[in-house]
Amino acid sequence: ALFIGAAVPFFTQSDSNDTSNFMASPITPMEQLQSNPTDMKTRMELMIMKVQAEFCKALEKEENSSHKFLVDKWQRKEGGGGITCILQDGKVLEKAGVNISVVSGHLPPAAVSQMRSRGKQLSEGQLPFFAAGISAVIHPRNPHVPTIHFNYRYFEVQDGTNVQWWFGGGTDLTPYYLNNDDAIHFHKTLKEACDRHSNTYYPKFKKWCDNYFDIPHRGERRGVGGIFFDDLDEPNQHKVFGFVTSCANAVIPSYMPLVAKHKDEKYSEKERQWQLLRRGRYVEFNLVYDRGTKFGLQTPGARYESIMMSLPLEARWEYMHEPDQDSREYKLLEVLRTPKDWV
Amino acid sequence: ALFIGAAVPFFTQSDSNDTSNFMASPITPMEQLQSNPTDMKTRMELMIMKVQAEFCKALEKEENSSHKFLVDKWQRKEGGGGITCILQDGKVLEKAGVNISVVSGHLPPAAVSQMRSRGKQLSEGQLPFFAAGISAVIHPRNPHVPTIHFNYRYFEVQDGTNVQWWFGGGTDLTPYYLNNDDAIHFHKTLKEACDRHSNTYYPKFKKWCDNYFDIPHRGERRGVGGIFFDDLDEPNQHKVFGFVTSCANAVIPSYMPLVAKHKDEKYSEKERQWQLLRRGRYVEFNLVYDRGTKFGLQTPGARYESIMMSLPLEARWEYMHEPDQDSREYKLLEVLRTPKDWV
Repeated sequence: ALFIGAAVPFFTQSDSNDTSNFMASPITPMEQLQSNPTDMKTRMELMIMKVQAEFCKALEKEENSSHKFLVDKWQRKEGGGGITCILQDGKVLEKAGVNISVVSGHLPPAAVSQMRSRGKQLSEGQLPFFAAGISAVIHPRNPHVPTIHFNYRYFEVQDGTNVQWWFGGGTDLTPYYLNNDDAIHFHKTLKEACDRHSNTYYPKFKKWCDNYFDIPHRGERRGVGGIFFDDLDEPNQHKVFGFVTSCANAVIPSYMPLVAKHKDEKYSEKERQWQLLRRGRYVEFNLVYDRGTKFGLQTPGARYESIMMSLPLEARWEYMHEPDQDSREYKLLEVLRTPKDWV
Repeated sequence: ALFIGAAVPFFTQSDSNDTSNFMASPITPMEQLQSNPTDMKTRMELMIMKVQAEFCKALEKEENSSHKFLVDKWQRKEGGGGITCILQDGKVLEKAGVNISVVSGHLPPAAVSQMRSRGKQLSEGQLPFFAAGISAVIHPRNPHVPTIHFNYRYFEVQDGTNVQWWFGGGTDLTPYYLNNDDAIHFHKTLKEACDRHSNTYYPKFKKWCDNYFDIPHRGERRGVGGIFFDDLDEPNQHKVFGFVTSCANAVIPSYMPLVAKHKDEKYSEKERQWQLLRRGRYVEFNLVYDRGTKFGLQTPGARYESIMMSLPLEARWEYMHEPDQDSREYKLLEVLRTPKDWV
């Protein structure tokens, strides 16, 4: 089912629940959402749909008006579905994907044992689960505009009568040329979102991000980082949801000013080639190391087009490419090899 | 150490041991090779160096004379090394890599348990090993010339006083447009090489190849297959070496006629774009599923530039790309979705 910009008014009682601007109608049937307004499943679904719509609209504002997001609503046989918004081959956005999914069913045993290896106390076997998340990767055309990725998700697993829940996510930036002001602005915006909830969050999640987006065989990080966390279930569901909402709402102020600032900058063929080489590294990380991609590809009934959406439109691999020392390309590599503190 | 076309005369007593045309001097010191002429380690190293040189020269003959293979001889800290020959951004060859490696040391425990899971009787822990192999991927520029990959390798693992050995390898073809004559010629040449040693080889190794080069999330094979085998240790070392040598010698007659036939065919921008999309699938297979790549990236001290050499110069990913039914692009997909018998 491929359609454009369908929207349905929904909860009209408050601004935050106004669904009339959503990219499509929610995944979960209206009656079910309306009858469980305080359930975290409902709140998360509405939050990620709102963020999806706002981010897509902010991106469209920077794009040539003839390029709009395509909206692809899909269903998953085992339960739930998703809404994939994609803008491809635009003037400003070479490939932009903003995806939400709200799925339920039974976790495959491999997923359960992966969660157990992270310290969760779960029985063996196929456990009922619910997951709602938003995930986006924006690959701009201009090499002076960084790529951004973010993902925020809520998980519930039922083990007998006990329901375990947690949140995870993060936002990270992958520039092709290092701009200190951009990196500082980006990290500062994320830090402010974190600090409103706990002073311990930003330092911890900044380091976690540097460690996660590691390409060990290259000895490089994927980009200049951001924040990353998983299995967050303290101090309580309401507070963690508030934190995750702040992070998701920080995406636009952290990133859109960088798009506006650099999208019309001139660039050379050499700069374009360097961008494509770095996109090759992006592909290497996503296909070899990223837990989300691996998990997705192993999940029966997963929608691989929405998983592979994160890959750039084009990428390049040259044997033994190494930029000259003192070049701007080399300056980026130095930061990727030794992450630094930006705020 | 980067140098071009160095060559050293070596065993002069027979043609097959004439090292004067090798791309570089052998990895193992001369004296050691000369004092163990009948050792399989020596024979395999000389065989793969000869095949490397012959294949590189056959490829250079089809290429514009200004583009020659770069020869990169490298050492591995833990023991041994390799010779990577690469021709990049040529007129006919967009990216061609022909690599040999002759390495020894101690297998990491993960590799041992991977071998045990394949049925090998090996003790736990770090076992001494020797491996010699040749591996090549040729990505031509013209979309009417298929990509070829082949790999032949010899393995020895020492477990106490017992030395286990086996051979593995294969050759497979990845066309961008289906040409029945090409596929038939390719498979027929491989079948003849197999049949000289056993009538059971081709049918068994053809099926193994189709099963190995599978991209489950796409529901496609990587290409039109060829042959693939592993753990071959019967009826005896001499005979298996003879079979593997026949396979390696079949690469040139199976592939070079296709290069000569199609390299000057006209092609459109649309055909180029399709080639790049298929190269994206090639990257997906190599980074997500290929056992060799995974094993390589997990091996401490592995030379990742020689592993990543298999990736194309450029690749492309479009969301939900699906060729029109009855198009030539669709005809290829049909064969990738349902492998067929070619001879």
